[in-house]
Amino acid sequence: MKINNQNYQSIWLDESDPSVVKVIDQQKLPFFFETKELRSVDDIYCAINDMTVRGAPLIGAAGAFGIYLATLEINSLTNPRDHLANAARYLVSCRPTAVNLSWAVAYVMEKLSFDLPPEALSERARVAAIEICETEKEHCRQIGNHGLKLIEDIYQNNGEKPVNILTHCNAGWLGCIDYGTATAPIYFAHDKGIPVHVWVDETRPRNQGAKLTAWELGQYGIPYSLITDNSGGHLMQHNKVDIVIVGCDRATCTGDVANKIGTYLKALAAHDNNIPFYAALPSSSIDFSIADGLNEITVEVRNPDEVTSISGFSEGTIKSVRICPEDTIAVNYGFDITPARLITGLITEKGVCRATEKDIKKMFSDKIK
Amino acid sequence: MKINNQNYQSIWLDESDPSVVKVIDQQKLPFFFETKELRSVDDIYCAINDMTVRGAPLIGAAGAFGIYLATLEINSLTNPRDHLANAARYLVSCRPTAVNLSWAVAYVMEKLSFDLPPEALSERARVAAIEICETEKEHCRQIGNHGLKLIEDIYQNNGEKPVNILTHCNAGWLGCIDYGTATAPIYFAHDKGIPVHVWVDETRPRNQGAKLTAWELGQYGIPYSLITDNSGGHLMQHNKVDIVIVGCDRATCTGDVANKIGTYLKALAAHDNNIPFYAALPSSSIDFSIADGLNEITVEVRNPDEVTSISGFSEGTIKSVRICPEDTIAVNYGFDITPARLITGLITEKGVCRATEKDIKKMFSDKIK
Repeated sequence: MKINNQNYQSIWLDESDPSVVKVIDQQKLPFFFETKELRSVDDIYCAINDMTVRGAPLIGAAGAFGIYLATLEINSLTNPRDHLANAARYLVSCRPTAVNLSWAVAYVMEKLSFDLPPEALSERARVAAIEICETEKEHCRQIGNHGLKLIEDIYQNNGEKPVNILTHCNAGWLGCIDYGTATAPIYFAHDKGIPVHVWVDETRPRNQGAKLTAWELGQYGIPYSLITDNSGGHLMQHNKVDIVIVGCDRATCTGDVANKIGTYLKALAAHDNNIPFYAALPSSSIDFSIADGLNEITVEVRNPDEVTSISGFSEGTIKSVRICPEDTIAVNYGFDITPARLITGLITEKGVCRATEKDIKKMFSDKIK
Repeated sequence: MKINNQNYQSIWLDESDPSVVKVIDQQKLPFFFETKELRSVDDIYCAINDMTVRGAPLIGAAGAFGIYLATLEINSLTNPRDHLANAARYLVSCRPTAVNLSWAVAYVMEKLSFDLPPEALSERARVAAIEICETEKEHCRQIGNHGLKLIEDIYQNNGEKPVNILTHCNAGWLGCIDYGTATAPIYFAHDKGIPVHVWVDETRPRNQGAKLTAWELGQYGIPYSLITDNSGGHLMQHNKVDIVIVGCDRATCTGDVANKIGTYLKALAAHDNNIPFYAALPSSSIDFSIADGLNEITVEVRNPDEVTSISGFSEGTIKSVRICPEDTIAVNYGFDITPARLITGLITEKGVCRATEKDIKKMFSDKIK
């Protein structure tokens, strides 16, 4: 995506120094556009942990680059196998819900032969991490094309009125490598001249909608309106939403979807008002080993400070304000599970399929072991 | 309710100077506990408008006191009838959704005979306004008693485990005159020794849950946890909510309920998880003239700044921070409609009734014209 006429991905290897992974600092957006250099496994861990990078596909890619950086840390005193296995465990432990992190780390680890000299090991890890980035980009592009058809159909069927799309959190190019998952169809529709308008859920507690999705859409020139997370139901009751498209942190083989907390409430409202509800995801977000989202997906519990305080921009800098009594106890679940029965379909790189075990397994028969 | 061992209502007439209406400044809570003096119709209008006072029963009482203050403004140059009619129109125009405001203003106006001398007119208005306060207090107390039975039943049926109650916004004593509507049963259960725990929706955009309900419950010593508005569905899916009790800004004679935006989403989640969902309201919140909430209740559209910025406490003072890009367009609907089909029952001063036209009209047959 272009920022000030320069092309960016959300993560890349520094051209002049390939021992440096560079990322856009998503803690500073939309107030400051800054990049950050990550030079060690620890740097990667911290960036995922403090949400300098976030979004299922992006934390997968970051984890993959983490293994690459771990190979650069091998010296005569380290046992490569132990060092890399420790790095892999450490990175995967950082965030539990999105399956992409463990998937990407495992993918890179599988490409390595520990008897290779360190340079060759690094080269394999580097190639594998970049392959993951390129594959995710291509998958997002394909998700964009498949999702575009859904928006196009609504546009045609509604007498060519602007298409109102509601999205939750940020499943945009910032959370992926490029294009985004939920946003790719929106960008492609806009490029094709279909008028779209996006209802952006602010997405408390961290406000990735207000801070990241709003910024992304604004940079691309797509009309959007910021709303509170409470508003979607009212909008749907009053025919102001034509389609809901969200991202996904982990889907089961039966079509249950873990996504940012609050997604389930929007799915209920869409269902109650006969509005199509889609989750957009690359197959790297599908966990083919589980079938029951509510009971098998670990929902991350995060720091309660994210609920009791809110950060924003004031007087030229990013400030945090407390929004409740000083001694307030808060609970901060990061995700919820939307049962497959509420999902109209999954938009994947291979096409749109129903959120059923049969259709998912048919579409991804190559991935079933 | 007691604050620092002193009894307070949310609105009262100053004992030493009965031309002054006093209120707790709800814009400053929970960071500062301050009272504010209102001395004119304009003061009342501004206090309702900027939400120094808010909550359906309280803005009704404030409107009633507004008419009383208007009678004090009558002098030899004013036509009492015109002056009071203008004041009434002005006050009612301030906020459109809660029916209590127009109901209370009309109630006081009906008590006035415009041929009375100004002092007698004032006295009648004063008596009527205080009567509204006393009646609302008594109704909240009765709501507390009726709702208490629901909580008691859950406590008995669940093996005397603590009862988890979810509430949205502030339907507490701050939004009423005393006791609250949704909170009265909670206070009464606590007083009776039933262990309760309240999930407090923060309630964006203005965070009345985080700022007011959390403060109220904390002052009373009731255990609560603050959550984002996105969290309720997840909690309900995991059996962490036993009952939902919310307030109401206007109910139709068929049982549809207008309440703070986001209420509908919680009702959907409660319905999806077989959790009882109640709205607590005095009959002054029932608009017997309408039957279709979605099409007949005006939903207030408020200032978008409430969405793009959040105020909180930082460095000893109340500060506002912007949470999105500078040029963001936001839309700020204040309320939504929960259809009667999602509501288990209405907790009123006369008892608990189903949210159906038949049961409502039976319970309030005296109010049907």
